[in-house]
Amino acid sequence: MSDVLAIQPLAVSLGDPAGVGPELLAAAWVSRAPRRVPCFFAVGGATLIREAARQRGLDLPIQLIAHPDEAAACFDMALPVLGALDLAYAPGKPCRSGAELALASLTEATRLAVSGAASGVVTGSIAKSLLAQVGFAHPGQTEFVAQACGIAAQDAVMMLAGPSLRTVPITVHIALAQVSSTISVALILRRARIAAAALTRDFGIIAPRLAVAALNPHASEAGRMGDEEASIIAPAIAQLRAEGIDATGPHAADALFAPRARASYDLALCMYHDQALIPLKTLDFDSGVNVTLGLPIIRTSPDHGTAFGIAGKGMADPGATIAALRLAGECATRRAAA
Amino acid sequence: MSDVLAIQPLAVSLGDPAGVGPELLAAAWVSRAPRRVPCFFAVGGATLIREAARQRGLDLPIQLIAHPDEAAACFDMALPVLGALDLAYAPGKPCRSGAELALASLTEATRLAVSGAASGVVTGSIAKSLLAQVGFAHPGQTEFVAQACGIAAQDAVMMLAGPSLRTVPITVHIALAQVSSTISVALILRRARIAAAALTRDFGIIAPRLAVAALNPHASEAGRMGDEEASIIAPAIAQLRAEGIDATGPHAADALFAPRARASYDLALCMYHDQALIPLKTLDFDSGVNVTLGLPIIRTSPDHGTAFGIAGKGMADPGATIAALRLAGECATRRAAA
Repeated sequence: MSDVLAIQPLAVSLGDPAGVGPELLAAAWVSRAPRRVPCFFAVGGATLIREAARQRGLDLPIQLIAHPDEAAACFDMALPVLGALDLAYAPGKPCRSGAELALASLTEATRLAVSGAASGVVTGSIAKSLLAQVGFAHPGQTEFVAQACGIAAQDAVMMLAGPSLRTVPITVHIALAQVSSTISVALILRRARIAAAALTRDFGIIAPRLAVAALNPHASEAGRMGDEEASIIAPAIAQLRAEGIDATGPHAADALFAPRARASYDLALCMYHDQALIPLKTLDFDSGVNVTLGLPIIRTSPDHGTAFGIAGKGMADPGATIAALRLAGECATRRAAA
Repeated sequence: MSDVLAIQPLAVSLGDPAGVGPELLAAAWVSRAPRRVPCFFAVGGATLIREAARQRGLDLPIQLIAHPDEAAACFDMALPVLGALDLAYAPGKPCRSGAELALASLTEATRLAVSGAASGVVTGSIAKSLLAQVGFAHPGQTEFVAQACGIAAQDAVMMLAGPSLRTVPITVHIALAQVSSTISVALILRRARIAAAALTRDFGIIAPRLAVAALNPHASEAGRMGDEEASIIAPAIAQLRAEGIDATGPHAADALFAPRARASYDLALCMYHDQALIPLKTLDFDSGVNVTLGLPIIRTSPDHGTAFGIAGKGMADPGATIAALRLAGECATRRAAA
């Protein structure tokens, strides 16, 4: 048995059942051997996944299970589905009952990771506006999972990871005009410390190299275009270095993601959402993983949306789902071995 | 004789002589046959280029010329250098006389393009702070060239072009905090119209497809994070479409540069510097060209800086210089054929 199978299975939430989630779980399971997908089970959705697989032309046996412990024994032969949450498959047609199912699946999958019955949670993509209509009060799944773990939302740090690059945005879902007034030495320190510790604990990088991006063009050219580099970012870097964290910068952001530059760091700390997401999606569009750092549990997610427009059409690429499962398995294995 | 050689030669300014400019001109000339570099001449710098070539291990004959018309006859055998501007080669050691030389070379190269003696100007990289000390009062070479052409600086539109992507930043060298208050319907329209016309005139794209980027994460999610998409960007797009320009958006910027998305447009119109430059440098770091659209002359430049730190060490990649020369030659050929 491989290292990965020696841990508890991963719990996977369905995401919005009208999106690409069900078919991607089916496609990921079918690829389990060649793509080395670790053992996982879906929380609910047996009918959804079976029908999504059929429409995608996949031969998919499903095994209903009553407890996560049963997943490992059947995973080679069938996709394990835990529990009776379900709905008729209607790709591209999101509805209130689908949002309720998505929330119930997310809630249970997270609970199983928190309890230790699952070695981590991989969350399918939801439509936030639809979930909000059924009582979901969080900006996103990251904050939901943080609360389920008893962690402050600010200490749940979103990292995007692909084969080419890892990035952490210091600010996330705010207007661009608010970025300058939101970044602070304290916020950078808080996120950078969590990220550095997580790279060591979960990614096995003993002395992670953090490249900190500038906010302004050309890193402001010594203050000619903005002063956040001198007033906020450089002091934060100095403090991190004083603490023994290998942080460098502020680096002009435009050149920071070129091939030679990428080889010089393990993580780029970015000041805003698109500064972190543009290079990631430009380089690793079909294999980007959203990882939540700083939690007591492992949580990953494919870095794409529900894609209602292509759901059920056999076009969605399972690369990011497979990458999210593999990365969660690798992190869980490292924690188990620690 | 090829199409490209049928036009007037290109005038090339040296850039800062302590930077990588001289060696890159030598390397570009040496590659003229395999890389199909069109006929060009350097404005000054015979000693600089000869010594830079020697230190790079290149065998480089130089032919001094007195008029651009003489370049074509000798270009196959030697790198033509026009005029006596010169200095001793001191890579990595910028100085006042070097800045004066850079400015004189730029001034003359631009003048030759404006007069029609050269079919365009390719400008080497300068250090703006050093040039400012010798009387250069412009934010950059783009504005200098615009003034030499009698064009308002706002109508000289910077485009970044690489093998993978073309982008135009609507705002350029300003602090990120100023972007939201600087973009306007009028500014987007002005730049987009110039860009669309130039793509047709100089790039041969009959009906250019312009993808307009959003400012905020996820294109603001219908106003949840900023409102510039609804109040500024969407109205500008509607107006462009009413004028018959194929503009789409606002597109969430993070996914706009992924491979499939890039195939759907000819130019991405971006709201700020790094939104345009991050994807360009991530994808095409060693082959990015800065093109000034909207001028009566052709002007391109390699999209990198003076690189004082590696000048004279044989490490600088001539890809962007070669790409800038080729692109200028292609645009000049199209204008000549029109």
